[in-house]
Amino acid sequence: MSAAVDTLLGADLLSVAQLSRAGIVEVLEAAEAFAEVSRRSVPRVPTLRGKLVATLFFEESTRTRMSFETAAKRLSADVASLAVGSSSVKKGESLRDTALTVEALGADVVIVRHHDSGAPARVAGWLRDARVINAGDGWHEHPSQALLDCFTVREAWCAARGAASEGTGAAPFDGLEVLIVGDIRHSRVARSEVLCYRALGANVTLCAPATLLPRDAGDWGVEIAGDFEDALRRADVVSLLRLQTERGSGAFVPSLEEFTATHGLTERRAALLKPTALVTHPGPMVRGVEIASAVADAHNALVTRQVTNGVAVRMAILYLVLGGEPGLLEAAS
Amino acid sequence: MSAAVDTLLGADLLSVAQLSRAGIVEVLEAAEAFAEVSRRSVPRVPTLRGKLVATLFFEESTRTRMSFETAAKRLSADVASLAVGSSSVKKGESLRDTALTVEALGADVVIVRHHDSGAPARVAGWLRDARVINAGDGWHEHPSQALLDCFTVREAWCAARGAASEGTGAAPFDGLEVLIVGDIRHSRVARSEVLCYRALGANVTLCAPATLLPRDAGDWGVEIAGDFEDALRRADVVSLLRLQTERGSGAFVPSLEEFTATHGLTERRAALLKPTALVTHPGPMVRGVEIASAVADAHNALVTRQVTNGVAVRMAILYLVLGGEPGLLEAAS
Amino acid sequence: MSAAVDTLLGADLLSVAQLSRAGIVEVLEAAEAFAEVSRRSVPRVPTLRGKLVATLFFEESTRTRMSFETAAKRLSADVASLAVGSSSVKKGESLRDTALTVEALGADVVIVRHHDSGAPARVAGWLRDARVINAGDGWHEHPSQALLDCFTVREAWCAARGAASEGTGAAPFDGLEVLIVGDIRHSRVARSEVLCYRALGANVTLCAPATLLPRDAGDWGVEIAGDFEDALRRADVVSLLRLQTERGSGAFVPSLEEFTATHGLTERRAALLKPTALVTHPGPMVRGVEIASAVADAHNALVTRQVTNGVAVRMAILYLVLGGEPGLLEAAS
Repeated sequence: MSAAVDTLLGADLLSVAQLSRAGIVEVLEAAEAFAEVSRRSVPRVPTLRGKLVATLFFEESTRTRMSFETAAKRLSADVASLAVGSSSVKKGESLRDTALTVEALGADVVIVRHHDSGAPARVAGWLRDARVINAGDGWHEHPSQALLDCFTVREAWCAARGAASEGTGAAPFDGLEVLIVGDIRHSRVARSEVLCYRALGANVTLCAPATLLPRDAGDWGVEIAGDFEDALRRADVVSLLRLQTERGSGAFVPSLEEFTATHGLTERRAALLKPTALVTHPGPMVRGVEIASAVADAHNALVTRQVTNGVAVRMAILYLVLGGEPGLLEAAS
Repeated sequence: MSAAVDTLLGADLLSVAQLSRAGIVEVLEAAEAFAEVSRRSVPRVPTLRGKLVATLFFEESTRTRMSFETAAKRLSADVASLAVGSSSVKKGESLRDTALTVEALGADVVIVRHHDSGAPARVAGWLRDARVINAGDGWHEHPSQALLDCFTVREAWCAARGAASEGTGAAPFDGLEVLIVGDIRHSRVARSEVLCYRALGANVTLCAPATLLPRDAGDWGVEIAGDFEDALRRADVVSLLRLQTERGSGAFVPSLEEFTATHGLTERRAALLKPTALVTHPGPMVRGVEIASAVADAHNALVTRQVTNGVAVRMAILYLVLGGEPGLLEAAS
Repeated sequence: MSAAVDTLLGADLLSVAQLSRAGIVEVLEAAEAFAEVSRRSVPRVPTLRGKLVATLFFEESTRTRMSFETAAKRLSADVASLAVGSSSVKKGESLRDTALTVEALGADVVIVRHHDSGAPARVAGWLRDARVINAGDGWHEHPSQALLDCFTVREAWCAARGAASEGTGAAPFDGLEVLIVGDIRHSRVARSEVLCYRALGANVTLCAPATLLPRDAGDWGVEIAGDFEDALRRADVVSLLRLQTERGSGAFVPSLEEFTATHGLTERRAALLKPTALVTHPGPMVRGVEIASAVADAHNALVTRQVTNGVAVRMAILYLVLGGEPGLLEAAS
């Protein structure tokens, strides 16, 4: 792993690990400018006019794809969506040739989701000019999700404390206690969140059934919670995760009911939280399993706010990887 | 059921039942203005620039979706299409959370098609700011289809009689005899058409095998035809419907052949119609079953005209539910 | 078959056979102008603003569809994509009614891919105003692919010889030796390439296992190679084809390994080529079957160049079939 760098300008976004604290703060601050654009009555800037943003998704994810596509359109880019299920891949084409084809068609950015860890990095190595954004690869990383989670927590945390949310380069999360709960083993979101929250100064604790903890979690610089309810009492932020049953987690818990009984954020457990604690979930939620319905709807659950902020964060990512050309805030023509 | 209202301005479109005669006429007249836009060499107005129109279809319907999307683009809106078959729904997300996610992504209008009657109304109750349009829910209603059917019949009827098609608020269909034939039991189009034609002053007659008549049809304010051929002789408009075999109508008729024999609009039966009678079909047609091929191609069949007008009617609906902002007819910038 | 004509202006593009040498050169020269547009930082011209380009694909082909859609967007047209797998066709609608519906929705051009030879021609006969482009029909033709192949070969050939690539109407390929190898029997690309290369003056040789040669190849005005390696030594251009296993070619060769052994362009065989020889492949490639991986990546393989040029050639086709209105090179507004 190469050293973390201080900027995403003109680079591929393959992982949170590639970014230093300054590199992460750069994304969050650009995202604030774009969040302002998103609140306009015509939420569109000409920043990426003439650019072609292609999505290349080897796993289904309407939510993430739609978020990136909305972000691209708000920047006036064109969007091409390659539905891989119905594509050349079925006819025997290699990942490399599919990626080269998308670039040859004129894509300036290729947003890749793939079931294999490292696939977006391989694509980035093959392409000549286009930038690559990792939209989730295997159990590895999902950097844009972690960035939007941190953006949303920062926004809510600063709002609650009356602090200015504009960072100064100082670690905005110094002393923040973040608790990540659930299917951590199969979660690329958890891996990216640990990196992102820690880089910003937070302390991170993991809590999961032993079978759903990654074997190397001891090397992540996090605490492993022995007692879920104790951990909840201490947390400032609780990050819940969906059981990735399509990635095999069903074999790791006796039943969904047992998972809920031991690690679900039920109403009773939510009552243990500090009044200021925040709850995040990357979606889609399965209510009644990892989160009780009333907890999902409570005022301190940030789920829809995460979705809204996701567009602004992805606008920032697209803007930065394409070199941060001038015109960021110029109104639509 | 609440009382019908006189305007769609700023409201959700969940049913024809919600609209009074004046509310229906408002849509038809706005649609005339947009039909004029559609005839321009550049059929585009900036009316909804910066708005995001999302389609959320839980049942397949390329035709209706493409019509709404074309309408949105002609109004300069952005379009996001959530293909539900490949979405979060499969991962266990609730309808409510899917809808809230689409709104959080920035949708100003959510167009919902769902296999459950009432689903769009539930979505409308959950969303905070976005408007909801029902694009067909179970066996309940398909309001935009009925509105475009009435628009098309009014256009053809007025053209044939040399009358101005611009309404004055007077019932344009006073005395018009409308005959709806076929799989009425499983047809949301039939339910919406009955409401729409009756509100505009027409007399409506239903004709179907007993097994394909809804049990409560006696309460609809319509006549039930005892003899199909007698009814054809009296009709000014014949509305045909596809057998909704995917919604179970196959179990209600002995065979397609028998349905055609008793209730198909064959060439022989079409010869019984008045020379001025009009034939509509919401499509997709199954030629040789509910309609003979020569009948579908005759000059009094309005099928492709319905498709063309559908775009203008849906432009009107989008324009009205979003509040009817000024700039309706302003040329594209 | 009617006589070949000298222009595509305002016509449907159903086959290469419909075009004379002058008609083909017209496309290639318009494509050069659009290739220049594609190299701009904002690769967009307003030429087709307000036009609706619809794709109607009855066979999967993300690559060709994405190329046409990118071409349409660079011309500022709107794009509607009818995913036939999830459409009215499943409900029993005829091809004719589907096509008439797409036209009634406002399509100015309908791009058709269909498993039946001649389907696009039938669609062209049914539509009243919209133009039709054949994007591949059965084993018949795939004209835009052959045109982009010739465009790419001409570009590389002229560049290598220092000649101006702008044609003068004189046959640009006089004396050029083109060798087409592989599954010719099931390849519409091969049929279109033979017509296109021959019209431009080239000599064409076919080489395939006997079972993969079309029975009527003797009538195509081509040579049939007895010996693959001799033919390679003579070739200026080698056009490789994918084994169309989804169209049944699996039944025509004992195994992929045997096909590769007798007709694959292995590294050893590629070494027999002249230093100036060029290699094309319409994609998707199956590396290790019809082409060795190192051969696909060699400097004389034009595969990604074909993809890039495909957008410019399809811009030219869209521009011409819609009548070649002025404004071809006017910069985007």
